[in-house]
Amino acid sequence: MEDVLDKIRETVKGIVPNTVEITNIEFEGPLLVIYTKQIEEFAENSDIVRNLAQTLRKRIAIRPDPSILMDLDNAKKEIEKIIPKDAGLTDVFFDVDTGEATIEAMAPGLAIGKYGVILNDIKKRIGWAPKVVRTPPIPSKTVKDIRKYMRSKALVSERNILLRKIGRKIHREIGENENWVRVTALGGFREVGRSASLLTTRNSKILIDCGVNVGSETFPYINAPEALPVESIDAVVITHAHLDHCGLVPMLYKYGYDGPIYCTIPTRDLMSLLQLDYIKVASSEGRKTPYESSCIRETVKHCIPLRYGDTTDISPDVRLTLHNAGHILGSSIAHFHIGDGLHNVAFTGDIKYEKTWLFNPAMNRFPRIETLIMESTYGGYQDFQPSRIEASDQLKDIVQRTLSKKGKVIIPVFAVGRSQEVMIVLEHLIRSGEIPNVPIYLDGMIWEATAIHTAYPEYLNTYLRNMIFQKNENPFLSDVFKRVDSTEMRKKILSDPDPCIVLATAGMLNGGPVMEYIKAWVSDQNNTLIFVGYQAEGTLGKRLQNGLEEMQFSEKGKTITVNVKMNMETVDGFSGHSDRRQLLNYVYSMEPRPERIILGHGENIKCIDLASTLHKKYGLETRAPLNLETIRLR
Amino acid sequence: MEDVLDKIRETVKGIVPNTVEITNIEFEGPLLVIYTKQIEEFAENSDIVRNLAQTLRKRIAIRPDPSILMDLDNAKKEIEKIIPKDAGLTDVFFDVDTGEATIEAMAPGLAIGKYGVILNDIKKRIGWAPKVVRTPPIPSKTVKDIRKYMRSKALVSERNILLRKIGRKIHREIGENENWVRVTALGGFREVGRSASLLTTRNSKILIDCGVNVGSETFPYINAPEALPVESIDAVVITHAHLDHCGLVPMLYKYGYDGPIYCTIPTRDLMSLLQLDYIKVASSEGRKTPYESSCIRETVKHCIPLRYGDTTDISPDVRLTLHNAGHILGSSIAHFHIGDGLHNVAFTGDIKYEKTWLFNPAMNRFPRIETLIMESTYGGYQDFQPSRIEASDQLKDIVQRTLSKKGKVIIPVFAVGRSQEVMIVLEHLIRSGEIPNVPIYLDGMIWEATAIHTAYPEYLNTYLRNMIFQKNENPFLSDVFKRVDSTEMRKKILSDPDPCIVLATAGMLNGGPVMEYIKAWVSDQNNTLIFVGYQAEGTLGKRLQNGLEEMQFSEKGKTITVNVKMNMETVDGFSGHSDRRQLLNYVYSMEPRPERIILGHGENIKCIDLASTLHKKYGLETRAPLNLETIRLR
Repeated sequence: MEDVLDKIRETVKGIVPNTVEITNIEFEGPLLVIYTKQIEEFAENSDIVRNLAQTLRKRIAIRPDPSILMDLDNAKKEIEKIIPKDAGLTDVFFDVDTGEATIEAMAPGLAIGKYGVILNDIKKRIGWAPKVVRTPPIPSKTVKDIRKYMRSKALVSERNILLRKIGRKIHREIGENENWVRVTALGGFREVGRSASLLTTRNSKILIDCGVNVGSETFPYINAPEALPVESIDAVVITHAHLDHCGLVPMLYKYGYDGPIYCTIPTRDLMSLLQLDYIKVASSEGRKTPYESSCIRETVKHCIPLRYGDTTDISPDVRLTLHNAGHILGSSIAHFHIGDGLHNVAFTGDIKYEKTWLFNPAMNRFPRIETLIMESTYGGYQDFQPSRIEASDQLKDIVQRTLSKKGKVIIPVFAVGRSQEVMIVLEHLIRSGEIPNVPIYLDGMIWEATAIHTAYPEYLNTYLRNMIFQKNENPFLSDVFKRVDSTEMRKKILSDPDPCIVLATAGMLNGGPVMEYIKAWVSDQNNTLIFVGYQAEGTLGKRLQNGLEEMQFSEKGKTITVNVKMNMETVDGFSGHSDRRQLLNYVYSMEPRPERIILGHGENIKCIDLASTLHKKYGLETRAPLNLETIRLR
Repeated sequence: MEDVLDKIRETVKGIVPNTVEITNIEFEGPLLVIYTKQIEEFAENSDIVRNLAQTLRKRIAIRPDPSILMDLDNAKKEIEKIIPKDAGLTDVFFDVDTGEATIEAMAPGLAIGKYGVILNDIKKRIGWAPKVVRTPPIPSKTVKDIRKYMRSKALVSERNILLRKIGRKIHREIGENENWVRVTALGGFREVGRSASLLTTRNSKILIDCGVNVGSETFPYINAPEALPVESIDAVVITHAHLDHCGLVPMLYKYGYDGPIYCTIPTRDLMSLLQLDYIKVASSEGRKTPYESSCIRETVKHCIPLRYGDTTDISPDVRLTLHNAGHILGSSIAHFHIGDGLHNVAFTGDIKYEKTWLFNPAMNRFPRIETLIMESTYGGYQDFQPSRIEASDQLKDIVQRTLSKKGKVIIPVFAVGRSQEVMIVLEHLIRSGEIPNVPIYLDGMIWEATAIHTAYPEYLNTYLRNMIFQKNENPFLSDVFKRVDSTEMRKKILSDPDPCIVLATAGMLNGGPVMEYIKAWVSDQNNTLIFVGYQAEGTLGKRLQNGLEEMQFSEKGKTITVNVKMNMETVDGFSGHSDRRQLLNYVYSMEPRPERIILGHGENIKCIDLASTLHKKYGLETRAPLNLETIRLR
């Protein structure tokens, strides 16, 4: 390894002018970091960095020598001292990976100062490069906790050691042997839930997703011999934060994994929120949890966040680029470039190939792609959904009808994804006067999930980003939304005779605060329950959808039976998944067209249907493997 | 493990009468061995053993307590003392696995004595159960060396420890988890050569074959992550002794494998012969050998020989039964019964589904079989071969024609398989007067390979076995066969003007003694070269078959050019492989019919052709995986 670094040091010396003193060169995670005391010289000569990156074929970061960086605690105090009170400083956090100090303020202009005078002052005093951002309008506990954790002294030094270890592993030298590429289905093939795939080459092992089937509590086959020992895995890549894709990542640390997790920043934060909730719910129901909260902290510690489009070495012969998948906040398609042009393969994760109220449609342009591993949730012959516009219209009609009868509307939702989309639509309908201005109550984890959305507006679609950044109109901030944050408040809502709309978890009515609202309102025919998400077989949601006439509740130890009078409505078209037409279009308009498509993430018949259609329609080689099967890509 | 044994001890106590003293119960390899000083009690009550086997569901062996067994050296001396001189004692060897002492004698009757009096005497004196067999008529160095090695003191005690270790691993307790069954193509799929498959269940890893592609010197992917670490493999099963199926087994011991090899006894012996030759040839050509002869000794040490039809536990959830494959001496189809009725899968290895001059046709009756992994060497649309009878007639005509012109016949052959079959045919033709009585010279390893055939006549076909055992007529012993065992003898043959037949290695003319005969006789148009085996692209054999007109030889440092005048003839139909019709018939007449057939051991197009035909003809699910792919069976 020292040989590799020595060679790199020689190359750097050859490119960087003699006047610039390089104090250290080190691998840190996927980056090659060059430390210098003269950081301005690099800033003024962007050619140097470009030249270095091209010559070394690595991602380069230039960082100030630690000797010129003030330690975190003191730097934070210094910033708090300098920033004027009326700028409304809310948080400061340091990105050790980039040498940046991010300053969150209510009035960014006042924090920056005229001509940036305050920032320049800060930079001189603390060494870190200061950056000012507007304070996220809704405070997120998750984001705050993670930032606090990441800047704790112990963690910073631990992570430093970790990143060096990971960096050296990524850039280790490998032989010139014949290489090969394979993918093994470890979970979530011919089924939905417990997604996990293992991408192996002669030199690398990459685990893509590591989900749990929450309904059946089944795990992917991460104990298959090709995945073992867990330490032999080079990298874990998480496409998005839903539990069926990331629910068991913390367990990997329990079983000895000590490597990196690559995902977007919103995925990291949403993932933590959902994983914590997963073990909380499990233990509250008296079930054994597969890991403890300390494992979730390990997961956060090992996260190396990537932005869409950044290409990163993650092992000696694999480069990863994440692209927008359009499914939920931070959701990604993971594209792998293997062995200098040997093979290119992308895993879609869950994709939405339609511009939604929240996100841009999934990306389908890649420099090269030979194999695509694609989801098939709605890949069956008859899986067509209405468009977003039709869905919104339908929602509007149902809500109008109910409110005109002074009824209540209950919309059971998943905390992440559907909630925010329905919120955007309802806010728009109220603002434009299409439905009456009634309060919209948010109960369960929705508020917190929405807060995380407002912390990362750059991951929303172009229209929303413009509204938020340029017009300063953030629909999530509308005062029609009321957070239900206490039992008292919920009781008050339940006994309030006025019409209202409630968004509450759980999405399939298998527990959660939504049950309280149903219990109170189910026997009134003026009320309406609107399903906007998939209801799995066996759930209460599915049974109500199918016309259940009576429900039992337990009340003070007794079981009471209630007649279901409330209207049951279903609005299709809010799905975060592409329907069959969108899946076919995604492939049709893809550039370049892949040679082979492997289908997963769908019930048996959907995977087979879609595989057969794609083969017949576009003449592609298609496969629908079973869990535990391995397909050779190259 | 002691718990398991304790439970078994209890069960045994309950079944065996109190009068019989059990001195020890231990797992030794796949067997549960019960030691007693009253071995006769078991012999007289065969019900006890049957009852034990059925209750414990294990293979049971009853052995004399070691205290009543004389040590090997003394026992051997004792036997040599007792057996009368005129019985012609040639060898004594002990099977520590069964407690038997095998006595080889020229006159078995005299060694047994009237009413078995001599044997009874021996038994009383040495404790071992004596068994008399006729001395193999042609001494085999390989068989002799292996037997000597196996009875060396150091080895006996080493093997004892080894078998206990293996036994405990086989019978370890496993959880009641969901089980699964997969097969991974590690080599020899969509190609011929380097055969290797990995059968994995949740609890076990079984490697079937571990061959080398001798032509290209390529190895199977035994470094694929699912096979590693090598120590994690429970068992290696070898279908037959050709190097493309067993050439790299010794390398496994170099890389840390310390487990058993399951195969028939002839496979063990032929395998040693061919592996030793493989590294001898490689080092004589200055190539690096992948292992040393010590690794071949390790292989022999770890062999657990099985007979056709014996069902044996080889891991906690896998039972193995070997069946005749009809391909070469000791060649086997490996049938695996997995997890108490969960799945049954058989690997054909190389099969001949026709009664040949040497072997019965391959077995295709199994108690149960859901998946068949089958060879496809001649699975292509046009791969039809003449029958054995037609082939023999054609051979007769060519030989007749040549000999009538006083010419010489050269038949290049592989040492194991084809040689012995051609020998049988030629011997028959001479004995029946259909061709003149000329000497048949055997040059190269043929003699030794034939000697191994005569040591295990029970593996030959029913007709030959009857001839040898009942009529005492062994065609291999005919004095028409002359062994070429010195350079002088070869020179004499080369300069002898009389007609003759030469069988010599190598089979594809890529080196070996056959080259000397060709050099001397190639320019005489009265001579004939007869190809009876497959000639691979690029070999001299193939070029001569295609009509090569000139050949170069080096003679005392100079290159001399010789015109090819000799007749080139090809007799198809001596192949050890089934042709397309036989492969289809094998499946057609199989009982029961499997649900799924996986094709391997054939060029790309042959595997695909056969897969497609079997699917269309019989409606079976067929697959033709690439190397490194994994198929889920259950």
